[in-house]
Amino acid sequence: MAQAIRLAQKGLYTTSPNPRVGCVLVQNDQIIGEGYHQKAGQGHAEVNAIADVKKRFPNSFVEQLKGCTAYVTLEPCSHFGLTPPCAQGLINAKVGRVVSAMVDPNPSVSGNGLAMLDNAGITSQSGLLAQEAKALNPGFIKRMSENLPYVRCKLASSLDGKTAMANGESQWITASHARKDVQRLRAQSCAVITGADSVIVDNAKMNVRWQELGELRHHYKKETVRQPVRVIIDSQNRLTPDLAIFQQHSPIIIVGVAKNKSIEPSLEKAQQWPHFVEHVTVSESIQTHHQSNEHTKAKVDLADLLLSLAKKGFNEVLVESGAQLAGAFIEQGLVDELILYQAPKLMGAEAKSLVNMPSIKSLSAAKELDIVDICKVGRDIRITAKLIN
Amino acid sequence: MAQAIRLAQKGLYTTSPNPRVGCVLVQNDQIIGEGYHQKAGQGHAEVNAIADVKKRFPNSFVEQLKGCTAYVTLEPCSHFGLTPPCAQGLINAKVGRVVSAMVDPNPSVSGNGLAMLDNAGITSQSGLLAQEAKALNPGFIKRMSENLPYVRCKLASSLDGKTAMANGESQWITASHARKDVQRLRAQSCAVITGADSVIVDNAKMNVRWQELGELRHHYKKETVRQPVRVIIDSQNRLTPDLAIFQQHSPIIIVGVAKNKSIEPSLEKAQQWPHFVEHVTVSESIQTHHQSNEHTKAKVDLADLLLSLAKKGFNEVLVESGAQLAGAFIEQGLVDELILYQAPKLMGAEAKSLVNMPSIKSLSAAKELDIVDICKVGRDIRITAKLIN
Repeated sequence: MAQAIRLAQKGLYTTSPNPRVGCVLVQNDQIIGEGYHQKAGQGHAEVNAIADVKKRFPNSFVEQLKGCTAYVTLEPCSHFGLTPPCAQGLINAKVGRVVSAMVDPNPSVSGNGLAMLDNAGITSQSGLLAQEAKALNPGFIKRMSENLPYVRCKLASSLDGKTAMANGESQWITASHARKDVQRLRAQSCAVITGADSVIVDNAKMNVRWQELGELRHHYKKETVRQPVRVIIDSQNRLTPDLAIFQQHSPIIIVGVAKNKSIEPSLEKAQQWPHFVEHVTVSESIQTHHQSNEHTKAKVDLADLLLSLAKKGFNEVLVESGAQLAGAFIEQGLVDELILYQAPKLMGAEAKSLVNMPSIKSLSAAKELDIVDICKVGRDIRITAKLIN
Repeated sequence: MAQAIRLAQKGLYTTSPNPRVGCVLVQNDQIIGEGYHQKAGQGHAEVNAIADVKKRFPNSFVEQLKGCTAYVTLEPCSHFGLTPPCAQGLINAKVGRVVSAMVDPNPSVSGNGLAMLDNAGITSQSGLLAQEAKALNPGFIKRMSENLPYVRCKLASSLDGKTAMANGESQWITASHARKDVQRLRAQSCAVITGADSVIVDNAKMNVRWQELGELRHHYKKETVRQPVRVIIDSQNRLTPDLAIFQQHSPIIIVGVAKNKSIEPSLEKAQQWPHFVEHVTVSESIQTHHQSNEHTKAKVDLADLLLSLAKKGFNEVLVESGAQLAGAFIEQGLVDELILYQAPKLMGAEAKSLVNMPSIKSLSAAKELDIVDICKVGRDIRITAKLIN
């Protein structure tokens, strides 16, 4: 199973909206075939593992497969999607036993694959290395069970939690290693969410830059690594097609507030957008805003936005934004994981803070996290932590 | 030499004002004696190692010592202090060769010990594992070479660099493991420096609490671990003898501003202090203060304070204070090492920031650090970093 998990990891940057799955077939304590899911529409892990047996044993694959044990990181699927059900594939191959790390997280189908195997007289077990298998697919699992994507929030600050000087000066707080590490995070995400402010002020493109992917380039072809869909929250319809982000030809979703009629874009303005730009609207937030200059403005309901992104099949999304939007996501309990890059600097109390969370007034209301990992990335620190509340 | 360094480390909490030194004596590739310096006034490492040879070989120690190699983490001393010169001790023992990790950092005596050995016909070398040996005695080295103590600054904040809510609520930001770790830092320090504010507002005692020293208790006796001298900066003479810190019977230095006549303590007030409290005055700071409510008040010159602490033989001092005083130390380039505990919390932009450094207005003026170590301490993070500028 450990090997099956390693195989599944090879799909880290490519399988979405499907889960990362690995499969190892074992006969007489020998691995006879291995496979993993690479890309939606292409073979699932089990099918690829069976094909591998055929390749390794062109003259005896039927005998090799018969009675073998299949180790799969996820319950074999039971339904026809873009490919036939894997459970049926294993039945046809006459495997003797199926060990899966976890059942399908979708409550309406969970267990059906194992039941299909049972009905065909194949022994099945589930739960081996379940923790490790779950870690492969936080987004797929959350989308299947809660209809929400797994939300990572990337932030960067000095050691004293500052992002910019009081005068706004902020470029290059973290060094190049950390910035390359962010490229990896983007490549892993189905979507990157940012605010109109970041796009307008920083003129950021928010894309994955192949030349900055470092070691990843040895494992994936430039063509197979997906560009995450760039989701820009633009409650006030301030974006214009001349911004740098629109010069990069890959999908963009501009998110506005439904029924925000006063600032509805005119048809003429709408026609100026490149073909890869989609406009969607979500509900207006009912959150109270404490900043006096903002409390009259309509705001996108972030939970509603995440629901709509899950509907589009987005498993893992990355919030990369300023203190205002990141703070709102965290404040509303919508972030699963924080990835904080800290530059070895101290900027002082007058500099600008990392996250605005105006509703948090007492220590007991402060957001609590669990540190998952800390490491150095170049000269900076990367802290990975899960939000608890 | 690696073993000599391990021995020297045993003096981490006890040798001050002397350096931590270890010595290993080797004859025919066998260790014949080991020693380290435990406490000022007691035997130096070389003397203790020679005594160890006598103990191990009561009938043949003269022969064992003759021609042996001495590995010492610091150049043997050449002068009579509380004990006779170690170089002479090695000469008397007729050792054949002396390998030291580093020369004495005091420029006026540096090399004299090795010269004494040379004159006696004993081969000597220096520089083996020099880096590791220097790390044993950052304070002793800095005091000898710059007449200043090595300054550590301990801070604690949330992940977003906040120390207290806007309303002042701040208790227990970090968890018990981190607070115990601070006890270890204190025990290692000759002095703990804090401000009158912290003492008055938090009613802190700033002492080493034996029961919170954890594993350290297995290595040191309660009696041998020093209490650091508690140095309280009280530019405005606001301290009163009834505060909790004065109920703890161990040395305290109250630092005031010289010639600050308007707020000179009256003789009557001075007489109220316990016997272990010493009053010292240092120059008034010429730093400009930007906080309008403070720029008219006299302030202690922190560099002058550190010079006076070095004169008292303090090697390593620990600044444990609020954002104002810690910020001033850092801003003025007086801190060598930052120890930052981060609790896994996010408190939001409205909460209070870690360090006030009003003179830092641009990113290029931000204080740069080098991360030396990052680790988890309980559920918190500890970051150790050296200040570069």
